[in-house]
Amino acid sequence: MGEFELLAKVRERLGPPGPRVRVGSGDDAAVTVPGGATATSVDALIEGVHFRRDQASLTQIGRKALGTALSDLAAMGAEAGEAYVVVGVPPELGEDGCLELVDGIAALAVETGTTLAGGDVTRAPVLTLAVTVVGHAAGAGELVGRKGAKPGDALVLTGEIGGAAAGLLLLERPELGNAVPERTAERLRLRQLVPAPRIGAGRALASAGASSMIDLSDGLGGDAAHVATASGVAIGVDASTLPLADGLAAVAAAAGRDPLELAVGGGEDYELLATLPPGRVAEATAAVAAAGTTALTRIGAVSAGGGVEIRLPGGAILAPAGYDQLR
Amino acid sequence: MGEFELLAKVRERLGPPGPRVRVGSGDDAAVTVPGGATATSVDALIEGVHFRRDQASLTQIGRKALGTALSDLAAMGAEAGEAYVVVGVPPELGEDGCLELVDGIAALAVETGTTLAGGDVTRAPVLTLAVTVVGHAAGAGELVGRKGAKPGDALVLTGEIGGAAAGLLLLERPELGNAVPERTAERLRLRQLVPAPRIGAGRALASAGASSMIDLSDGLGGDAAHVATASGVAIGVDASTLPLADGLAAVAAAAGRDPLELAVGGGEDYELLATLPPGRVAEATAAVAAAGTTALTRIGAVSAGGGVEIRLPGGAILAPAGYDQLR
Repeated sequence: MGEFELLAKVRERLGPPGPRVRVGSGDDAAVTVPGGATATSVDALIEGVHFRRDQASLTQIGRKALGTALSDLAAMGAEAGEAYVVVGVPPELGEDGCLELVDGIAALAVETGTTLAGGDVTRAPVLTLAVTVVGHAAGAGELVGRKGAKPGDALVLTGEIGGAAAGLLLLERPELGNAVPERTAERLRLRQLVPAPRIGAGRALASAGASSMIDLSDGLGGDAAHVATASGVAIGVDASTLPLADGLAAVAAAAGRDPLELAVGGGEDYELLATLPPGRVAEATAAVAAAGTTALTRIGAVSAGGGVEIRLPGGAILAPAGYDQLR
Repeated sequence: MGEFELLAKVRERLGPPGPRVRVGSGDDAAVTVPGGATATSVDALIEGVHFRRDQASLTQIGRKALGTALSDLAAMGAEAGEAYVVVGVPPELGEDGCLELVDGIAALAVETGTTLAGGDVTRAPVLTLAVTVVGHAAGAGELVGRKGAKPGDALVLTGEIGGAAAGLLLLERPELGNAVPERTAERLRLRQLVPAPRIGAGRALASAGASSMIDLSDGLGGDAAHVATASGVAIGVDASTLPLADGLAAVAAAAGRDPLELAVGGGEDYELLATLPPGRVAEATAAVAAAGTTALTRIGAVSAGGGVEIRLPGGAILAPAGYDQLR
């Protein structure tokens, strides 16, 4: 099957284009009429670096590629708009494999209202995905970056953390699955394999006055440090308040690991970490709950200074090392 | 060097952001205020598939990655806006190599007024580049797709063709260089290694009433067929009028190849093929000349029907096979 024929089959799998799309996939470029402001982010997943095909199905890999890109839009408080996908296809993948991959991407696109508006398919030595996503807001001022955290702000977190790290342990050491019920183990593995972008929660937090926001791709410690650096503030986390994923403690114990270290240092939970005035935490909590897919927990506060401190129950303080590895 | 440190060095190499960019590289997503309509395209270059590092410098590879992506915007008649670059870095490339690559991208970005507004750096088994470009126009109606060619339209082509194919022959069989002066050989190799996106010419053609437009990435035969199919018309090319690259005939002769076959079937010239009402050809020619980097040649006409015919000087007709290989 040639490139053009494959692209035609891919187009069959896509939903109708969103309201801003004038020309979708199939011309030299997609044409959109964005209005307002756009948030644009790119993310790459490469076989052997970000995933292994013996641990994840092609549908899951496609879903994760779009999901991690959309998570960046969630962290800006943007509405999902368009996605552009580059797929590098290794020799052994074949047509059915490509279409399975596209099914995963297309399913999440439909769920999130994202239009797959363009792409490129090419040969590659290993399965390679690069996804560009464009999100929208009425104006640039409605999008939330990393820079606006202020001393006195409350620190809030969506959902639970540590699940993706526990899921990775379960994928790499299947015998650890004995430590938890199979349903729990499967839930943890799926946290790692198919993270859910918190688009609705991100928009709710932006509307409720979030002063800064980031998605947890590198882990709470490292990502909080990005916000602290960009905003020029200190961030304090009360470890006793952290919403740890169900089953994390048992998997960590079986693996001889510290659950808190997995929750703080493990990445890929793709929850949102935001700061906002303390007087608006209740409003934000209600708005996130209304968005439907996750909860909001207050986990700390912003103060003057710099860096990140994670206060442990016994009074000790953990200063997480910055996560800065090329991955 | 970690990912963040590398990204900081990359940011040092970039020019100031364009007028539509509110937040550039360094946050979860770039924030822009596009206004009007946007054209968005993605393009990937993968080592061993699209380039070889023993034939092209890293600066040239970077330049080509952005150049081929921008060529799609040129083919829409869009103004260059923002670029988002994914770089997959193989183990042996190192920091200096990454920065050389970025230098090539940044140089063309500055020349074309493109803002590098975001990116992602990751490990990869071979050097991998995926570039997303966003171009702009006042409205969607000013952007030119492949669908609008009408019977009676004239067919015009910017610049010269066949140079990239001859350049590839010279790169793969250096002994063919003896067939032409070294300066000519170098010019042909550069046509292959660092194609120039015809942004100015594309905007000029759009303003002068182009009814359809495409850039020649697959070759004149294949790309004309895309326009014929999308527009539901027949395209006739008079081979005697084709502007062949200087040196093509000599290199083709030395290689035992037909120069016309290289010009029509070889890809990667990245010239623009456009259709427009015959009464506007003179205006378009003047506008393209005023844009400064290339000439415009009338090479054929659009008629009712379908398919592409290339009429050879002796009266024979070449019906080029569609180019449909996954590359």
